[in-house]
Amino acid sequence: MRITDIRNATAPMASNISNAYIDFSKMTASVVAVVTDVVRDGKPVIGYGFNSNGRYAAKGLLAERFIPRLLGAAPEAYCNVSGDTLDPLKIWDLLFANEKPGGHGERSVAIGVLDMAVWDATAKIAGVPLYRLLADRFRGGEIDRKVWVYAAGGYYYPGKGLDALQDEMRSYLDRGYRVVKMKIGGAPLEEDLRRIDAALSVVDGDGSRLCVDANGRFDLKTALAYARAMENYQLRWYEEAGDPLDFELQRVLAEAYAPPLATGENLFSHQDARNLARYGGMRTGHDVFQFDCALSYGLVEYLRTLETLTAHGFSARDVVPHGGHQMSLNIAAGLGLGGNESYPDVFAPFGGFADDVAVEDGYVGLPDAPGVGFESKTALIKVMREATAL
Amino acid sequence: MRITDIRNATAPMASNISNAYIDFSKMTASVVAVVTDVVRDGKPVIGYGFNSNGRYAAKGLLAERFIPRLLGAAPEAYCNVSGDTLDPLKIWDLLFANEKPGGHGERSVAIGVLDMAVWDATAKIAGVPLYRLLADRFRGGEIDRKVWVYAAGGYYYPGKGLDALQDEMRSYLDRGYRVVKMKIGGAPLEEDLRRIDAALSVVDGDGSRLCVDANGRFDLKTALAYARAMENYQLRWYEEAGDPLDFELQRVLAEAYAPPLATGENLFSHQDARNLARYGGMRTGHDVFQFDCALSYGLVEYLRTLETLTAHGFSARDVVPHGGHQMSLNIAAGLGLGGNESYPDVFAPFGGFADDVAVEDGYVGLPDAPGVGFESKTALIKVMREATAL
Repeated sequence: MRITDIRNATAPMASNISNAYIDFSKMTASVVAVVTDVVRDGKPVIGYGFNSNGRYAAKGLLAERFIPRLLGAAPEAYCNVSGDTLDPLKIWDLLFANEKPGGHGERSVAIGVLDMAVWDATAKIAGVPLYRLLADRFRGGEIDRKVWVYAAGGYYYPGKGLDALQDEMRSYLDRGYRVVKMKIGGAPLEEDLRRIDAALSVVDGDGSRLCVDANGRFDLKTALAYARAMENYQLRWYEEAGDPLDFELQRVLAEAYAPPLATGENLFSHQDARNLARYGGMRTGHDVFQFDCALSYGLVEYLRTLETLTAHGFSARDVVPHGGHQMSLNIAAGLGLGGNESYPDVFAPFGGFADDVAVEDGYVGLPDAPGVGFESKTALIKVMREATAL
Repeated sequence: MRITDIRNATAPMASNISNAYIDFSKMTASVVAVVTDVVRDGKPVIGYGFNSNGRYAAKGLLAERFIPRLLGAAPEAYCNVSGDTLDPLKIWDLLFANEKPGGHGERSVAIGVLDMAVWDATAKIAGVPLYRLLADRFRGGEIDRKVWVYAAGGYYYPGKGLDALQDEMRSYLDRGYRVVKMKIGGAPLEEDLRRIDAALSVVDGDGSRLCVDANGRFDLKTALAYARAMENYQLRWYEEAGDPLDFELQRVLAEAYAPPLATGENLFSHQDARNLARYGGMRTGHDVFQFDCALSYGLVEYLRTLETLTAHGFSARDVVPHGGHQMSLNIAAGLGLGGNESYPDVFAPFGGFADDVAVEDGYVGLPDAPGVGFESKTALIKVMREATAL
């Protein structure tokens, strides 16, 4: 078999939402398609990938470096030994050739997008959903038939008041979610506390059903002030209080704040993840790692990241990926993660899961379609096909 | 005043050299030109920038995100209060708007290149060399009139034997250098030791005149094996033994190895630099930080990095930047760093200094031309003008 073409497109992901750090008015996403000459159901197998959200499309990097490395390679360099399917691990090495260590950003997105398309194609060639392929290869065949998900929203946007926030949260519950997440840090502490009170009232005042996310905005003093003000709520988690690379802030915060903390969505390599595990004071079985494979060199690197976490006493169940996409859902189900984010209302159509699997009592089921499952989500596969002209 | 145009070009930087991690056969560099409507000597002031070496050109990122942000801004957003020159700090904020924290790579190169061009233009508008502008703004006017430099080379390339290595090192001494650097880790330890012996014989067996650089290749075991084998040489420094983000390796190595260590060229933000300062076991007045502004968000971020180092008990003299370029030379002279790298033979014409300032007894003087000094280096400014069609 061989790869016959790789398409490289950019799709808008713009919206008028803001978190405490950026607004999303110019956000974009890369969409790639890896076209093979393997035929299934009378058509060539095509693997699709996109880059989650929060980081911009990597179109230039893909065109300048990464797609040429893969398209220019001989099939032996990217196929398995028998030559009948792709080998994602060999492809990863090929993509990272002549890249220096350190400085993990942007290229981690470019490789992450390609890696997603490669796994999608590989599972489609095998004729199985990706979670099944992963479970068979890496977990003795065991699958989580449903995955815990929570509804991420609660963004700041112009004119949004407490009523609108409550309506939003209520609508997530109506759609089967049990746990919701809202942004903090984009308003003063007192105002954020009123917002938290408002959201809590929607989830029966049960702190374990509400997460808050500061998107890395706080210095230590502010992070601790929020921690003191929020501690009695016993929230599900307090996410990305400080700069994602300020592991010392994270460690001090964990000493001062008993309920769970979460972070990691802006760490893009297993080396960065290792530093969080080493220095961040993360508590096994309590705090949450949120690495997003699409932003961090893909699933091949994610396997290294999970191995690193295990070596530092953590478990795959301590991981609930950022991004709310089907790739992470497959990893969660196939490798036994702690759950997955979900964006019911934003980043459409990239966020969300298959059309025919509802969220029930806070868990989402899995589609049966081969690959990542893009074809099970009509609006998404339409955008992917149109963007890549396929 | 206003910015009238920004040019975005890619120049080849290919060579047949290798270090322990990558080969440079497809290496490129970004060259940008920031064109202003300020007239000096009858011509519009143009600031130039390029991205050092070891990371690829960031053409796509510059075109997709960073140049539009600057070109699309109103002059008030990038000028000083009186509107007669650029404000590099305001420009930095403008470039980083709506970028998430963490994941510092690639975009750090794109911003670094633009930042260099902005400082070049700013110093040209002021009619002074950049080192003078920096000394006046940040160091009470004090300048280092000459800067310690060392000759970096000793790469692996096909067919290169010990004689060729010695000839190369000797030629650096002939050109005024006192200290030389060679690569290790691309060959087995025993062979590298013979290479080190050969190089040492050229510098009178004086270990303080030889640095070795593993380019992040070693795991802890190998790093320690090299450390034990090299300790008696009392080398000037042992550079980037392990992965740049493996601060624990660095700390353990510093406990085991008494002579100086050096690292940091692959850390691209003040947050990453802070982690090295916090966790890496670096020894004040002994070990060497090698951050390269062109790869790490430019001089504006470098000022934050230097502040961070000071806060952790280090000094600007502990910093000897990677890259061998004139931008770092200006920073070294203007802000009082410990010295600067130099590549006498590779990465031409981007490496090296002004045509009319010779290296003498291991120190290089400074050109008088306004700006970074690109116009004082004929071969470089020619490439920059041709690449940007100016």
